Amino acid sequence: MEIQDFLVEEGQTVRLADRPTDYKGELTKKKVTEELMPKVIEEMQGLQERLAADNHYGLLVVMQAMDAAGKDGTIKHVFAQLNPAGVQVRSFKQPSVEEKDHDYMWRINKALPARGEIGIFNRSHYEDVVVSRIHNLIKSDGMPEKLIKKDIWERRYRQICDWERYLTENGFPVVKIFLHVSKDEQRKRLVDRIVTKQKNWKFSMSDIQERQYWDRYQKVYGEVLSATSTKYAPWYVVPADSKWFLRYSVAQIVRDELKKINPQFPKLSPEVEEQLERFRKILQEVDIDELAAIKQTIK
Amino acid sequence: MEIQDFLVEEGQTVRLADRPTDYKGELTKKKVTEELMPKVIEEMQGLQERLAADNHYGLLVVMQAMDAAGKDGTIKHVFAQLNPAGVQVRSFKQPSVEEKDHDYMWRINKALPARGEIGIFNRSHYEDVVVSRIHNLIKSDGMPEKLIKKDIWERRYRQICDWERYLTENGFPVVKIFLHVSKDEQRKRLVDRIVTKQKNWKFSMSDIQERQYWDRYQKVYGEVLSATSTKYAPWYVVPADSKWFLRYSVAQIVRDELKKINPQFPKLSPEVEEQLERFRKILQEVDIDELAAIKQTIK
Repeated sequence: MEIQDFLVEEGQTVRLADRPTDYKGELTKKKVTEELMPKVIEEMQGLQERLAADNHYGLLVVMQAMDAAGKDGTIKHVFAQLNPAGVQVRSFKQPSVEEKDHDYMWRINKALPARGEIGIFNRSHYEDVVVSRIHNLIKSDGMPEKLIKKDIWERRYRQICDWERYLTENGFPVVKIFLHVSKDEQRKRLVDRIVTKQKNWKFSMSDIQERQYWDRYQKVYGEVLSATSTKYAPWYVVPADSKWFLRYSVAQIVRDELKKINPQFPKLSPEVEEQLERFRKILQEVDIDELAAIKQTIK
Repeated sequence: MEIQDFLVEEGQTVRLADRPTDYKGELTKKKVTEELMPKVIEEMQGLQERLAADNHYGLLVVMQAMDAAGKDGTIKHVFAQLNPAGVQVRSFKQPSVEEKDHDYMWRINKALPARGEIGIFNRSHYEDVVVSRIHNLIKSDGMPEKLIKKDIWERRYRQICDWERYLTENGFPVVKIFLHVSKDEQRKRLVDRIVTKQKNWKFSMSDIQERQYWDRYQKVYGEVLSATSTKYAPWYVVPADSKWFLRYSVAQIVRDELKKINPQFPKLSPEVEEQLERFRKILQEVDIDELAAIKQTIK
């Protein structure tokens, strides 16, 4: 399996149960962490520098997952290695009262990356078609009741696809990653948060409560991934039972997206180029010792 | 002609030259300013109060026009009479460097009204399909060149229609008003800004320069109005040579939109209603003088 095998094709129906959570291929942790991952990170760093210099494109990376699937760790281990001046991580928690008083994309729009930046969404507008649906939160979200019709979720899928196409067409490609963890692996990680002191702070009772809805989440996520994976803003379902494999996969996906953008250092105008050439010549003709002497007299 | 006659039907082709700029019907300034306008304003005030109390819908009013067509005056004379706590006026000038570094809807999205509010856009995202086009600004707007294709304007029309539909579907109806002034009336108003001392501050040399592009503006506006007037977010082309007629028309359009929303004071829950009923009874049985006496002992 290659990265492309994790892609959800436009129109494809996703059943999460059919997609692997523990795939690692021929890879070993040692080979990835010591050899392959550093190489991908280096490529990402080079591409990021060009993205910033070019200043025409911005990349939006959306991450969704069940609790404890590894979103935070991925951000910490993959994106922390990039120049923070060009990376914006935005976590979306439960909407505030002010946010609920607006349309559901309002807070998302405000958080969009600028040209030259990579924006990472830790959760996103997809919460508004997953959590809102499973917990029937839409009735308390401020929406007029008359507008909460039977086709509300199909409508939102369409709205989201329209929005993502708009972004792509305006220079902001969107890539979406679902970290696919198994129920068993999640149990292990949650238990770990309870028994390991340094991880206690990550534990939240609500994670245990949400586990009750596991099957419902898997089903809804399947539907969402099927309805909103498009050519211009595709979903990847990445096996997440192994943290190193997961992080390596995410890094590759983002690197590939940056490669597709193919950002270039801006070319100088012929006038500026000519001027620089003149300066270069002057500098070549100048005696370095003479320069040092001049510098001293200035002091 | 009624207000509905100023509407652009979905799919209708607009030629601005065919639409009146100086229509007044049977109305007189006296009748409108002394009798009709105060009535409409009162209706708007009542509807605004219900909109705020209901807190589910927000109304977006977009105003576009040639220079000196009366946007500022309309805002001052129509919307200033509403409760300012529930009205947000946002003027869009030339985009800042930060704004250009984002997609063109970024600054528009940030300025959207909340539920319960009326948002007035003095100019809007329509500048990005009119001024950007006439002055070829799109090349300096930060967009990647590769994405500025021949169909860029049709794409933007689609993007804008998608966005306006999204807003409508989420409880934010959109109404768009084009103030249609004649070239001759504009000349009079611009001259007035030059000769009348108190109006000098409004004068800008760029208004005179823009007048050279009059025909081009009329043509592009015609195309834009034709392409983006939809059932869910219609355009009205309002005759603007007479200020009182224009303002009265805008007030009616906004009142009618609020009526369509038909916002309601929230109903109390049966429990709260029951409690209030008990309090009412208690208050009826209490001797007012007794209450006053109790109040005094508390002091």
